[in-house]
Amino acid sequence: MPNHDLLITNATLLANPADGHLQEDAYLAVADGAIVGIGAMADLPARPGADRIIDAAGNLLMPGLVNCHGHGAMTLFRGLADDLPLMTWLTEHIFPVEARLVDAEMVYWCSKLAAAEMILGGTTTVADAYFHEDAAAQAFCDTGLRAVAAQGIIDFPAPGVPDPTKNIAAAADFLTAWQGKNPLLTPALFCHSPYTCSPDTLQRAKALAREAGSLFFIHLAETRDEIKQIKEQHGCTPVELLHRLGLLDENTVCVHCVWLEARDIELLRETGAKVATCPESNMKLGSGIAPLTELLAAGVPVGLGTDGCASNNDLDLFQEMASCARLHKVAAHEPTRLPAAAVLGMATGTGAGVLGLAGQTGRLAVGLRADCIIVDRRQPHLTPFHNPETLVYAGRGSDVATVLINGRVVMQDRRLLSFDLGKTLDEVRRLAKRVKAGG
Amino acid sequence: MPNHDLLITNATLLANPADGHLQEDAYLAVADGAIVGIGAMADLPARPGADRIIDAAGNLLMPGLVNCHGHGAMTLFRGLADDLPLMTWLTEHIFPVEARLVDAEMVYWCSKLAAAEMILGGTTTVADAYFHEDAAAQAFCDTGLRAVAAQGIIDFPAPGVPDPTKNIAAAADFLTAWQGKNPLLTPALFCHSPYTCSPDTLQRAKALAREAGSLFFIHLAETRDEIKQIKEQHGCTPVELLHRLGLLDENTVCVHCVWLEARDIELLRETGAKVATCPESNMKLGSGIAPLTELLAAGVPVGLGTDGCASNNDLDLFQEMASCARLHKVAAHEPTRLPAAAVLGMATGTGAGVLGLAGQTGRLAVGLRADCIIVDRRQPHLTPFHNPETLVYAGRGSDVATVLINGRVVMQDRRLLSFDLGKTLDEVRRLAKRVKAGG
Repeated sequence: MPNHDLLITNATLLANPADGHLQEDAYLAVADGAIVGIGAMADLPARPGADRIIDAAGNLLMPGLVNCHGHGAMTLFRGLADDLPLMTWLTEHIFPVEARLVDAEMVYWCSKLAAAEMILGGTTTVADAYFHEDAAAQAFCDTGLRAVAAQGIIDFPAPGVPDPTKNIAAAADFLTAWQGKNPLLTPALFCHSPYTCSPDTLQRAKALAREAGSLFFIHLAETRDEIKQIKEQHGCTPVELLHRLGLLDENTVCVHCVWLEARDIELLRETGAKVATCPESNMKLGSGIAPLTELLAAGVPVGLGTDGCASNNDLDLFQEMASCARLHKVAAHEPTRLPAAAVLGMATGTGAGVLGLAGQTGRLAVGLRADCIIVDRRQPHLTPFHNPETLVYAGRGSDVATVLINGRVVMQDRRLLSFDLGKTLDEVRRLAKRVKAGG
Repeated sequence: MPNHDLLITNATLLANPADGHLQEDAYLAVADGAIVGIGAMADLPARPGADRIIDAAGNLLMPGLVNCHGHGAMTLFRGLADDLPLMTWLTEHIFPVEARLVDAEMVYWCSKLAAAEMILGGTTTVADAYFHEDAAAQAFCDTGLRAVAAQGIIDFPAPGVPDPTKNIAAAADFLTAWQGKNPLLTPALFCHSPYTCSPDTLQRAKALAREAGSLFFIHLAETRDEIKQIKEQHGCTPVELLHRLGLLDENTVCVHCVWLEARDIELLRETGAKVATCPESNMKLGSGIAPLTELLAAGVPVGLGTDGCASNNDLDLFQEMASCARLHKVAAHEPTRLPAAAVLGMATGTGAGVLGLAGQTGRLAVGLRADCIIVDRRQPHLTPFHNPETLVYAGRGSDVATVLINGRVVMQDRRLLSFDLGKTLDEVRRLAKRVKAGG
């Protein structure tokens, strides 16, 4: 066995959460950021060379979680305007503070705070979508988080792109600037929605994404109002509209997909399009309950996302898993719906597939990048730990003790190691005063 | 100002969570277990005498949470049998392990584990209901948790009461043994349900509760199957049945109340009966969504409960608040439903009222017992902290830094001080091996 950068020993291994299989007394070896060995402690050579050894002490070793949709910078607006009607919330609170406060500096620090929260909660990959995404991408690179960073496109004056006729050009510049720049950062595009982007904008954005081989994200079929509006304007559902415009393919990630007709699900399946579901956001905004059982039955890959902090209000994928699993049971009055293992899969391997990263992350296997977490299962609320379902129904982000991303220990014993959390908190608190001050 | 046992300084005070009012730079003074002073730091005498001072350092000081329904001992069955049809879960998993493993020793240690989880999560009062409740009551007394402990009554052989004809006598013995024994422990009765207790049993139990001035708990209107069964057997709804039997009054706490007709809500209101809602359990078992908006509009007091760990699977009232607030929004497709402050009230002052303890706990005011918690709001997922709504939508049990119950510091800086957690975990793990071993 070659020399390793790092060896994790004495772990209870959940290598592929979707299959629910636990292996006691396991090790994982890392070299050059990749997993180079995994298996039973008994099969580990007596004296493996390793620069660093982390003793998992019987705790759970599993892949880091994959957050398929978020707006990191919106941490600044956490809890700013809760429990309001959707349009009041958007037009009287979120849009005005965004117009007033979103600049590159705000996006940088608030994305960094989001990265801190995610890493501390066991998330190792995020698909982020916002404006001034250059600053978000830089923030993620500076924190060690693996990220798909998608530059926002909308047919209105937006932060960083005051002239909407330049939105595609700005997106092209973003892709050019970030392609191949950092192995942990994948640039992509994010069209806000079919009701805020014209068919022409949508098609030009997708053409640009195709040319660059990039993912194309879009909020889709989130609310009944959106369905009504698109049907009135275009005579079809939002999914049908995207299909007509030629936008649906395996590199398109449709976010929300709450209100789908049978034909919409069939179109998603036929085209290979992906879905990101954000149940806590859909619950809190009263949007509705996505037909996940039907999507999964049709074989549409569905990843799990937190959405932004203005509508969730946290970035804890453990709690998102619990909400997702519970919500679909009560919606169907059927406790067998969406079993825990399926939800664990959505938050790990399936999510990685949705982001085109299945060859890098989402499972623990030799050859993949070393994105993994150690969960402290000795705590009262995880005792006893009969099986991995307990992670979904009783786990929470704060149970994560240690996080590796691309082989780097970015958090250990609940302490962030990859950047200065105190400085980040101070900067965000300074910005938060401007939110309240209204100035 | 007299000498205090304890003084909490520099707090951001949320004295009555239902009103959402935050007071910066506040103090709270405790003597003989009671709150004897509360107010602005500026009004604190320059040199207050205090045996002990806890500097809250700007963190949030609020009443401890009140869990209106749980089965503490069922921590042993956490995650034992998830995602199964209700009857399979009950008859093939829960009932058999209960018959095999529930004895006084199991109830003692597993209730103690529940107390540890609750205290670490900011819960200072619990209404517990199980069999061998003597052992649960002793466990709660040994942990310093304030508890209403209700002895289970069912017309089947039960742990500790193998002969169901003795179930009322056993309950009477329990009340006698615990009345006036410990100021933090209030004994009560718990009839399992109208489909497992005969009308005669229900009436005898309620008569006993009335005689002793005790609360009477019952699982009621939890599933559609129950409604169907009761209507077939009695020609009325479960709530109507209880009313006919003369069981509804201000000392009756109806747990679940998922399936209510308009007349049921009217009966609850007229009789002064109380409700405990357990949304996460109702979600996970696919039972349904309680008509909370209608109950609250009718003025029926509703407290929040976690239910037991076999169906939740944790005892974290912060997450329960989030699930409750989000669920009722999505059920109504209306984000203004069940605002955060209302849910905070359910988990504190209203919950205390449901348990007949409004004169002791649930708010912070001079004369009440000192049941309070300090929440560390400096963490990334609570930053920025624009308002108390953030507690509901982003808070979790692990954010609680310090817990006082009846003036005693039972947890500080995440360390349990009132009993030996390690010993408790060891005992429960030993019992858990018997669950798996099937022996």
